[in-house]
Parts: sequence; C-alpha cells; structure tokens
Amino acid sequence: MTEVDFLGLLRTLPLHPGAIGLTDDAAHLGSLVLTKDLIVAGVHFLDSDPPGDVAWKLVATNLSDLAAKGAEPVGAMLGYPIGDDGWDRAFLAGLDRVLRAFDCPLLGGDTVRLPAGAPRFLSLTAIGRSASAPLRGGARAGDILWVTGTIGDAGAGLAIAQGADGPPTLLDRYRRPTPRLAEGQALAPHVTAMMDVSDGLLIDARRMAAASGVAVTIDLARVPLSDALLTFGDDALTAATAGDDYELLFALPPGATPPVAATQVGWFEGGSSLRLVDGDQPVPLPARLGYQHH
Amino acid sequence: MTEVDFLGLLRTLPLHPGAIGLTDDAAHLGSLVLTKDLIVAGVHFLDSDPPGDVAWKLVATNLSDLAAKGAEPVGAMLGYPIGDDGWDRAFLAGLDRVLRAFDCPLLGGDTVRLPAGAPRFLSLTAIGRSASAPLRGGARAGDILWVTGTIGDAGAGLAIAQGADGPPTLLDRYRRPTPRLAEGQALAPHVTAMMDVSDGLLIDARRMAAASGVAVTIDLARVPLSDALLTFGDDALTAATAGDDYELLFALPPGATPPVAATQVGWFEGGSSLRLVDGDQPVPLPARLGYQHH
Repeated sequence: MTEVDFLGLLRTLPLHPGAIGLTDDAAHLGSLVLTKDLIVAGVHFLDSDPPGDVAWKLVATNLSDLAAKGAEPVGAMLGYPIGDDGWDRAFLAGLDRVLRAFDCPLLGGDTVRLPAGAPRFLSLTAIGRSASAPLRGGARAGDILWVTGTIGDAGAGLAIAQGADGPPTLLDRYRRPTPRLAEGQALAPHVTAMMDVSDGLLIDARRMAAASGVAVTIDLARVPLSDALLTFGDDALTAATAGDDYELLFALPPGATPPVAATQVGWFEGGSSLRLVDGDQPVPLPARLGYQHH
Repeated sequence: MTEVDFLGLLRTLPLHPGAIGLTDDAAHLGSLVLTKDLIVAGVHFLDSDPPGDVAWKLVATNLSDLAAKGAEPVGAMLGYPIGDDGWDRAFLAGLDRVLRAFDCPLLGGDTVRLPAGAPRFLSLTAIGRSASAPLRGGARAGDILWVTGTIGDAGAGLAIAQGADGPPTLLDRYRRPTPRLAEGQALAPHVTAMMDVSDGLLIDARRMAAASGVAVTIDLARVPLSDALLTFGDDALTAATAGDDYELLFALPPGATPPVAATQVGWFEGGSSLRLVDGDQPVPLPARLGYQHH
C-alpha cells in the first residue's frame, strides 16, 4: 500500500491528541515536541555518502522538524544497526560532530546487528522544547508565505553527489544541511503556520495550504536562489521542486515583517489549490512538485 | 564491532544526564521516561510469526521498559517499513489491539518503503510518565531480589513456535507478552532497583548487580515456574537462562514485603559476582546466562 493509504489506516488507531491527527512532522506533548525519522540506504542516502555525513543528515533533518516548531533540542534517541567497524566508527565521529554542533545530547537508543545483505536502516527520535510550537495548518487567507535562506541548493548537491560537476558548497548543502533552529525559535511566536522544506518548496507549500484549508500561490520570480545555484545553472522551477533544503517555510499575517532574514515567495487565499506564477504570468504546474517517498 | 564496543564509543559522545550513562533501558526526562527499541525479522521475531503478534510484541516489550520505571504509558512513535498489503494490514490490526489493551495512543512516527529483499526492521519509541522512576543500579548489599509472575514460559514458547509440541499458553507468552504496568507502578516507590527480565533471569540479575556495584546470588529452587512449564518439561536452570519473560525483577530492603504478588529468588551481597545455588547446594554457572544479541 502507499504511504497515504497506510497513514489513513493508522489514523483509525487510538491517537494521542498531541499527534495532531498525524498531519504534522512532530508531536506535541506539553512543552515538548517529538519527531521520529527513519532513513534507509538507497532511499534516503547513497551508499557512497560518507558515513559521518549520514550521521549529520540523520540528526540535522530531525532537528529541522524541531526548528519548525520553534524548539530548542533537548536530546535524541538513536536506533542503529551495527555493521562493519570502519563505517560504524566514521558514523560515530560524524554523530559526535553534529550533536555538538547543535547542542543536542544523546538520551538513549537501541542497537541491533545489521543482517548480512540488508541495507542500513537508521532511526532517530529527537525531542525538543518550545514555548509556543506552531502547527503547519494555521495559515489563513491573506497571509504571506515566506521562506528562509535559499532554495534548490541541496537538489543540485544531490546531482553533484551522483556525478555532475558543481561547486562543493552545493554538495555540502545536500550532505550536511543546517537546521534553522535559531530562526525557528525567533519566528515561532509570530507565524500562523510553519514547517520545514524537506521534499520541495512546491509540494511542502501545498501541504501547508491543504493542512490550513486555504489555497496558496507561489511566485517563481521570488524564489531565493544562491549565486552558486545560478552558476550551476538550475532555474527557479527546478529549485522549487527539489528536496532536502531544510529551510523554514512559514506564514505571516499581511504587513508583518519576520524577525529573521527571509523572502516572500507567495500568498494564501480562500480555496484549496496550489497555483504557480512567474511575476505576472501564470505558470502551469509541473507533473512533479517535489520528492515523494512512495 | 560488538554492541559492548559500540556502546563504549557512544558513551564518549555528548550524553544527556537523563541518559544515565546509557546504562539503563529507558531515559529520564523530568517526569517522563523514554525508551526506544528496534526489532528485525530473523533476529527478534520469526518470519513465521503472525504480523499482529509482531505488533503486539513490539509495543509490549517497550511498555515493559516503562513498567520497570513505574510509568504509565503516555504514547508511542512508530517507525515502519511499508511492504506487502496483507502483512501491513495484519500488523495494523495487532497494533490497534495492543495500543488499546495498554491504553497507549500513537503520538506519531515515520514510514519508509521496505526495500526489496530487506528484512523487516521496526522501531518504536515509547513515552511514559512516572512520579518516581527507579534505576536498575540502586540495589544494596543485603537487599532481597524478587521477580513477578513465572519465569521461562516464553523460552518454552519460542521452542513451540519453532516446532516443539507444547501448550498454547506458553506460545502466547512468547508471542504476546504482558508488560507489568500496574505492578511496576505499585512497586516503584518501594524498590531500590528495578528492571524487566528481557534476556533471561540470570543475565538480567547480573546486569542489575553490576549496575549496582554489588554481587547477587540466585536460588534455582526458588525460581517460580508455571504448571504449564513443568508439564512441558523445562527445569529451573533452562527457565532462568531463557529470554522474553518481561516480568519485573526488583530489589527490596530485607524484611520489606512487595505490594504485588512476587517471589524471592535471591539476594545481594558485597562483591561483584553472580552466584547460583539450588537450596543449600552451590551450582556452577552455565556457559550461557541468557540471550545475548551479539
């Protein structure tokens, strides 16, 4: 079955109110927020990726979910299949770096022997604390859609990891993303909705709009692109449909100015669709809005 | 590397104080306790086990860790690889049953597509709340070692699952263990140390003694065996070295009476060893004290 079908069935099970109907990336438990991610070799990372960078990405992507809740990290629990010494040691060195970089100590976890021939499957539960965790479903008609940083760099970095020529700065954005923790904490009290851009700007904006019960329009002319990406040659539509950015996407009431550097990329209206424009010109939606896991 | 080596390296990383040096089965975070388990087909369950029972066991074993903390379940986060429809639906039906049985709602989780040919790998993070969570390392010389329920039933159940003839009640104890949540909550304020028996009475008692910095003696003549197990034909030594019991093992000061049904199986002394007796007679330690994952 598809992930959508599975989640549909899962929603018929007893759910905690803090699960928010399994519609969000993190659960709310008092002032704590909790998120769990599973990553598998060949699906979420390449076998050729350096093990230390896999550790970085595992932690950073979970912390990005916490950032979208305006949370500061409390700790993480690791699920790890022990395999060969070299990979494990390099993974642990990277894990040490990323935990120190974002001040997120280990709380616990579990290990298992990696069965012969099985792909590596890693899991992490990250716990954070937030005074006012926003939902992804709070955007209102009239709100403006903003995004931190630049979009599309990690998508180009994936192409570079797979053999394309390009600057190392883009590869770094793919392999060692930066969760926007400080930005999330500054934004949380002001936003009407917030989430991280993990699967692509278009698909994630549509998810925010759907969860909020409104329509969203994205202006490709406003999508922030880095100089490195422009040099690499990707256009705004490619950037807006690439995944792994881990920037924060958020809605603010019209006229409000975000307390951190960010770019207006669109706006919300009544309705239920995703529209794309390039300045004044309507643009047809591409067949693929972003990365879909199934 | 071995699990022991891996944990040794993991302990050099930044640890949360609530991780208790990664020496316990659950982390402490204020009044919350958190535990994470990873189970893999062919290692922790048999491919022939009914999927609904795999769900039961995944949740029940995590809740058993919470029971050892005197906690009541708050919620659980699931990591699940979506595979074939039939297995997934049967798993979800079992998950529904076990979550309802122990009043543990879902808080969230993550899914991934099960790669072709890969063994199923499932993970669960369970969160509980406890007013006074005991550690496994608090036993003192002179304390008495107690255990709830009967020991060895699940080990016989595993033999039955693998083809031996025996009563279904033993198979049930292997496939659908009961976390001792009520017992744990009643015991927590009184015990000096508590943990669940997951890998075997002898190995887990030795772990409690080692964490507490004391020696422990187990009296095989006192190990509680069920009528079903006696009929099946296992002796006390076989029972005491079998895993998957999920009973509670706890230490009480001498003279104290537990507030729940339980059996005295041994005592703590100064020192650092595990000794075995059968009434008055010393018994040599068997080569294998219980189930070791690596």
